[in-house]
Amino acid sequence: MASPLDPVLTRITEDFDGAVDRLRDLVRIPSVSADPAYDDRTREAADWLAADLQSIGFQASVRPTAGQPMVVAHHPGPDDGRAPHILYYGHYDVQPADPVELWDTPPFEPTIVTAEHGPRLVARGAVDDKGQVMTFVEAFRAWQKVHGSLPVRLTVFMEGEEECGSPSLEPFLEAAKDELAADVCVISDTNMWDIETPAIATMLRGLLYVELTLQGPGHDLHSGLYGGAVPNPINVLTRVLGQLHDADGRVQIPGFYDDVAELEAEVGQWATLDFDEAAFLDGAGLTRPTGEADRSTLERIWSRPTCDLNGIWGGYTGAGAKTVIPAVASAKLSFRLAPDQSPDKVLAGLEAFLEARTPADCRFEMQNLGGSPAIRVPTDSIYLAAAKRALGRTFEREPVSIGMGGSIPAVEAIKRLLGTESLLVGFGLDDDRVHSPNEKFELRCFEQGIRAHAALLAEFAELGTP
Amino acid sequence: MASPLDPVLTRITEDFDGAVDRLRDLVRIPSVSADPAYDDRTREAADWLAADLQSIGFQASVRPTAGQPMVVAHHPGPDDGRAPHILYYGHYDVQPADPVELWDTPPFEPTIVTAEHGPRLVARGAVDDKGQVMTFVEAFRAWQKVHGSLPVRLTVFMEGEEECGSPSLEPFLEAAKDELAADVCVISDTNMWDIETPAIATMLRGLLYVELTLQGPGHDLHSGLYGGAVPNPINVLTRVLGQLHDADGRVQIPGFYDDVAELEAEVGQWATLDFDEAAFLDGAGLTRPTGEADRSTLERIWSRPTCDLNGIWGGYTGAGAKTVIPAVASAKLSFRLAPDQSPDKVLAGLEAFLEARTPADCRFEMQNLGGSPAIRVPTDSIYLAAAKRALGRTFEREPVSIGMGGSIPAVEAIKRLLGTESLLVGFGLDDDRVHSPNEKFELRCFEQGIRAHAALLAEFAELGTP
Repeated sequence: MASPLDPVLTRITEDFDGAVDRLRDLVRIPSVSADPAYDDRTREAADWLAADLQSIGFQASVRPTAGQPMVVAHHPGPDDGRAPHILYYGHYDVQPADPVELWDTPPFEPTIVTAEHGPRLVARGAVDDKGQVMTFVEAFRAWQKVHGSLPVRLTVFMEGEEECGSPSLEPFLEAAKDELAADVCVISDTNMWDIETPAIATMLRGLLYVELTLQGPGHDLHSGLYGGAVPNPINVLTRVLGQLHDADGRVQIPGFYDDVAELEAEVGQWATLDFDEAAFLDGAGLTRPTGEADRSTLERIWSRPTCDLNGIWGGYTGAGAKTVIPAVASAKLSFRLAPDQSPDKVLAGLEAFLEARTPADCRFEMQNLGGSPAIRVPTDSIYLAAAKRALGRTFEREPVSIGMGGSIPAVEAIKRLLGTESLLVGFGLDDDRVHSPNEKFELRCFEQGIRAHAALLAEFAELGTP
Repeated sequence: MASPLDPVLTRITEDFDGAVDRLRDLVRIPSVSADPAYDDRTREAADWLAADLQSIGFQASVRPTAGQPMVVAHHPGPDDGRAPHILYYGHYDVQPADPVELWDTPPFEPTIVTAEHGPRLVARGAVDDKGQVMTFVEAFRAWQKVHGSLPVRLTVFMEGEEECGSPSLEPFLEAAKDELAADVCVISDTNMWDIETPAIATMLRGLLYVELTLQGPGHDLHSGLYGGAVPNPINVLTRVLGQLHDADGRVQIPGFYDDVAELEAEVGQWATLDFDEAAFLDGAGLTRPTGEADRSTLERIWSRPTCDLNGIWGGYTGAGAKTVIPAVASAKLSFRLAPDQSPDKVLAGLEAFLEARTPADCRFEMQNLGGSPAIRVPTDSIYLAAAKRALGRTFEREPVSIGMGGSIPAVEAIKRLLGTESLLVGFGLDDDRVHSPNEKFELRCFEQGIRAHAALLAEFAELGTP
């Protein structure tokens, strides 16, 4: 019997230009969830996806939340019902594009540029996560066009707040639990090992994101009149935040490492990967490894907790000199969390750390912008095995198991609230400049991603009803 | 013989509403020298002053420089030439008004508000330095209107870059040396001791202002992909700048205190002043003295060197969360300098301080935005004695000798390049919110300032040719 996959792969090849055009249409919509100024456009991206899914046989809708809306779409799968129910999760929102002046082309005018791996699409959201989302949507489309149906029962669920802490995710999952719970959740928001080698992420760090404001004098002061006799909030802020790490790069918040698991098995396995540290650093414009002492670079980015200042501002930042002592100074900081660390406990530790260092007449205000714990994916599931086969077939190379330094808060929430484990199969590359100017997605990765998702549908169909 | 001063004082009283209107016209012009967007308006303020001086018998002109123009005006004084030549220096530029949202009324719409000391004028530049400049201009006007001439030879010289480091001042003084050199230079850019008590500033701290940029990775990075394994410029910047002071509030730059004079005589005299520390702190919204250990508050603000961060910025500063590791982070910082400290030596010390703390793959860029050493005014001059008499007569109270935490770079340059000592007689109050939102000038101080300047003209005339 001919494989149902083969004609789907042919169709994917034939329609690839169309797939690229559709992705361009989607990334052209500036769905910047962090900035309310873009709310209409963010909603537009949700509408676009719902309409696209509707056009390929899904019952799709856009559901309101207190924040950005959710896109939910269902396909019943084969008539006989003898198939697993697969949930696909993704996000249609993107990071802000600033600093816009560092983009070679406008961030929301998707541009094809040819480089070492052939053509690539350059735009904010090209890969994270619109490009990755369209890998499975295009696989569904091709299967639907060839076979008039889909081989498994499918639910697609996309949120629009992944880049700003997913505040509406948990209430929505709670409410839509029965509708969304599935046998497994497939997520494409991770990277390949390299352009030849597919990867399945089995560990993701968690995240805690906090905004701090330090209040000092009652109003801005002239440093000539007051300098030397008053607490300067920028001086104090740098003094306090400058103590966040010790000389060995260890975070100095009380209790920070108490619950951090030592992952000997994973670390041992990562040591066998042919990690090109020089290339990794070069991709960031750097030459020397840095970070927590006595840890490998892969541990530092995959399994060790961190504290990074993501933004800082205060006082006069215009042209020239202004001798002001400002009344306030602010910072945004985030922690990447290791398995078993609790965001709440880290937040409490940060509060104690600041408290112990706040001088008289100064006051820290802390705003929690969201958090989620780290995740480990079970390595013995039939779905993971299916994904390994699908990726192996598509790339003619075995996928490797990787950690992932970024967090996908949905993974933890989907497990906790729906009881559904996730499968993290992504097609980004480490040099995709995610969250940076000139974000890109290799079209070769895009096409292989679509083919891999089609192969995965075929593998899932083979599993039958669990 | 009737005093020539008495009818001038009467005229000042009668014309005070006119004087307030003229000051309002001047402060309405947003002459923000630090921001090139205001260049046309800055020039407009220079034109306004030249025209006003022309209208009261001066030969006045606006002279171009590489930056903002200079206003120069001459009056020959009495026909017999038996009078000293007095230079009046001031500046017509103002600090930026931001943060604009903290003003109760628009910064460039001068507004009269009535408070404890009667009516006050609220606007950017109300006192610094437009209000103070107009104290002597109005004294000239009144004398000219009453007597048809002025009792001494006068040169008025005003710059438009005092708030941004005075880059054109020295070249201009050098070139116009013969035209500007005088017997003494009178400057009104300092404060009274309190609203009842006039003051003469005999010491001013110097200033060094620097902008720093720390360059780390080659472009902005995603903290999920790179966090923990790359130098984060904001982390590094806070770590380095957070070490600028030790726990005793002493600046940690190498050699910083080497040349700092211990001013036992002055410090002893200041200890006899009835300084209200609680009121000083309350004016800044604070409750506790802070700063360098084992120093009085007056030492901390008048004679001790400081290091204040005046601005800091880097990474994402918009609404919500963005998990970026930025490529650069920046800060503006300035040092108030004690007598005998050299700005160049402090700059070299800062460079060494940064150099010793810059991690691999990071690079500090330093931009010198201007500096000038501290100043001590000779206390035995006939002009100082004349000023004491004029102030004593006007306020019916002896003036006190004060230090001044702010710097007036012109004082040092005028001495070095013209050979002319300065006399610092000002009418601001410590709570005038100079450089802050809601800057104000008490109209009572404005009127007394005009009267004091008229009395000073009379005293100078009495001195005859030196």
